[in-house]
Amino acid sequence: MAVSTVIFALRAEDGSAPSLWTPFVRRTREPHLDQWALPGGWLPDAEPLEAAAARTLAETTGLRPSYLEQLYTFGDVDRSPTGRVVSVVYWALVRSDEVAGAAVGNNVEWFPADHLPDLAFDHNAIVDYALRRLRTKVEYADIAHTLLGETFTLAQLRSVHEAVRGHPLDPANFRRSITASAEIVETGERLAGTPHRPPKLYRYRDFTRAAGAPAETPTPTEKTRTLS
Amino acid sequence: MAVSTVIFALRAEDGSAPSLWTPFVRRTREPHLDQWALPGGWLPDAEPLEAAAARTLAETTGLRPSYLEQLYTFGDVDRSPTGRVVSVVYWALVRSDEVAGAAVGNNVEWFPADHLPDLAFDHNAIVDYALRRLRTKVEYADIAHTLLGETFTLAQLRSVHEAVRGHPLDPANFRRSITASAEIVETGERLAGTPHRPPKLYRYRDFTRAAGAPAETPTPTEKTRTLS
Repeated sequence: MAVSTVIFALRAEDGSAPSLWTPFVRRTREPHLDQWALPGGWLPDAEPLEAAAARTLAETTGLRPSYLEQLYTFGDVDRSPTGRVVSVVYWALVRSDEVAGAAVGNNVEWFPADHLPDLAFDHNAIVDYALRRLRTKVEYADIAHTLLGETFTLAQLRSVHEAVRGHPLDPANFRRSITASAEIVETGERLAGTPHRPPKLYRYRDFTRAAGAPAETPTPTEKTRTLS
Repeated sequence: MAVSTVIFALRAEDGSAPSLWTPFVRRTREPHLDQWALPGGWLPDAEPLEAAAARTLAETTGLRPSYLEQLYTFGDVDRSPTGRVVSVVYWALVRSDEVAGAAVGNNVEWFPADHLPDLAFDHNAIVDYALRRLRTKVEYADIAHTLLGETFTLAQLRSVHEAVRGHPLDPANFRRSITASAEIVETGERLAGTPHRPPKLYRYRDFTRAAGAPAETPTPTEKTRTLS
């Protein structure tokens, strides 16, 4: 048994629009030596699933998201060439400043989530599945909140919608749909550090999520919800 | 590693309103000898996860739902007294006629989902989690379709909403909310076999679900979607 983690973060390359990126770790042993793979590792007998996912993620990528959500358990009998491995896969969204703050090893590299290299095992299928889940999430409030924080400009919010949906949105239409919805309100403040006409900051009117609670599905017990 | 399955079906006892019931299997060995437990068993090395869940479900309860959806993987280190067991749990809704058609062994008994006996292992927590997931499902269309079939009377549809939510609904208000929504339409037919003023049959206007696709979340690969 193994655990793996899919991480999504927003990243803008060379002044282009932000898109979703995800980190992989170069394998240092067979099978799939030198190929990129999801951060993860074997499940020790005495370690809770989520704790093992968090530990292996931190050890390889330096990332320490405030919580991990269980995504799916992958157990096809032929997914590893060296015998049956069942992998419990977790996922999390992280903000860019969490990425920047993480000490990163030599063997880690980030790739655009929709232009992946040829990954080890069935990890391409796993990331594709995570992307589909993210794109069919009903609540963008959770996604935006996690990627942007409490307040954001309309341009930042649009960049999240664009990155998740994978295509650009018309700025004027987006602004109209947001200001027409009662969900998102002005905070009365403006973005700091922008000298000329700083853009307004907005927030979700009723954003409530229990601290540490997964965005989509409550985990079954307190125990599995707390990272040790 | 083990697999288990939570099954929900509608059942009306003694002329009362239908509610959700779920089957358990009496354990014939230690630990938890003679206690009720979810249908399930060990995962053989060469069997896909969902196939193992389907097989153990059929062997113990005679039930063969058209598909099983992966619910969650439970892996607390102390959930079994005899060493660490990670259980991949599947779930399904089944129609009453599927329940009636299943040959049932001596060691199976159905219980109301919100009045469970003291189950083996952490199975009470697992069923509670499945109930919460069912109750927070956004789409009642999937639930009603699976439990009732293509067409249904308003009273039948209300009984599904009542059973899932766990409390009665005002019939007049329910009728108003349904006829006001464009989602549910009259079929033009009436329930057969009711001699006097047979009630009208309704259906979801745009009900589309890929055959065999899970109600909530698409499974990642064709392979895991097909019961062998």
